[in-house]
Amino acid sequence: MNGPEIDTLVRLLSKLPGLGPRSARRAALQLLKKKEATLLPLVDALSAAAEAIKTCQTCGNLDTRDPCSVCADDKRDRQLVCVVEDVADLWAIERTAGFKGVYHVLGGTLSALDGRGPQDLNLASLVERCAGGRVREVVLALNATVEGQTTAHYVADRLSASGAEITRLAHGVPVGGELDYLDDGTLVAALRARRAV
Amino acid sequence: MNGPEIDTLVRLLSKLPGLGPRSARRAALQLLKKKEATLLPLVDALSAAAEAIKTCQTCGNLDTRDPCSVCADDKRDRQLVCVVEDVADLWAIERTAGFKGVYHVLGGTLSALDGRGPQDLNLASLVERCAGGRVREVVLALNATVEGQTTAHYVADRLSASGAEITRLAHGVPVGGELDYLDDGTLVAALRARRAV
Repeated sequence: MNGPEIDTLVRLLSKLPGLGPRSARRAALQLLKKKEATLLPLVDALSAAAEAIKTCQTCGNLDTRDPCSVCADDKRDRQLVCVVEDVADLWAIERTAGFKGVYHVLGGTLSALDGRGPQDLNLASLVERCAGGRVREVVLALNATVEGQTTAHYVADRLSASGAEITRLAHGVPVGGELDYLDDGTLVAALRARRAV
Repeated sequence: MNGPEIDTLVRLLSKLPGLGPRSARRAALQLLKKKEATLLPLVDALSAAAEAIKTCQTCGNLDTRDPCSVCADDKRDRQLVCVVEDVADLWAIERTAGFKGVYHVLGGTLSALDGRGPQDLNLASLVERCAGGRVREVVLALNATVEGQTTAHYVADRLSASGAEITRLAHGVPVGGELDYLDDGTLVAALRARRAV
């Protein structure tokens, strides 16, 4: 009923995470109704980001520079490498401002079901980064899913010859979380890892 | 932590309806990770839509042509005008394919609180469209909110001299709805408007 331009726009917007067909239509409508205030700035921002974005050759982060701002930061501890599945995880840890090392983005997990093997991950460069005692500690910050943990075991195995200490994130009660709503696995893990007050 | 281009993109995306700061970040990341497959087509679609979009001078619909495809359709009953608040409502009614007349988009509702008076609505052109018996029936398809109904009363009043029959959408039980979950107002309205089977 509307021009093909609008249909195409709605279809592309509906592919974004968090937007379904209905909200994509609402988003398209808002963009079109306020063309000068919303649509044109978004076009500019998308074009600028597309032009500027680079994948860091060292860690796999997305940034407007290569090496990325984390890898280029002299105040970072380069002997402490945090391994994450995805750039989103890296950004999430960076937002906490609680980690002063550098990162390595695997770009996914091993998955027999989906046919993703070690060669599909950004793994060879991690082994190379850690070889010869250049890295003191590798933190495996992978998701606490079956696939994440399988991948963590595999990565730990591959890094065993590097001499680096391999650690993983602690399991336990989320800060602010209520015990009553926790699953049994987390509760058992929290109990086992209990600490002196 | 990332370049200003990424921050700007996330900020603009987070203003879209249905996207908050967190989902905007996920959307930006997906766009940047799959630049060729998602970001560049979206830029093209936005640019094409911005270029092509027009506001119909007759009814206020957004379309790639003016008069819009509804107003230009010869098979439409031009003596039957459906008045809606917003282009989104027009699109919603069009999707049902159950209305064969034409539309008039008011562009909002009267609101004393927000300081929106009759002069802020696309109302003068509606009065003109309906003058001199050129329109047989005006369907007021405004939202069943206080503001929508206030606006409906006002519009009906302004059109009283036009000679057109003024109707409104029926209140009642939503199709597929359960009585138990309906509010009292809707249930009373549905009872009052009961029909012979």
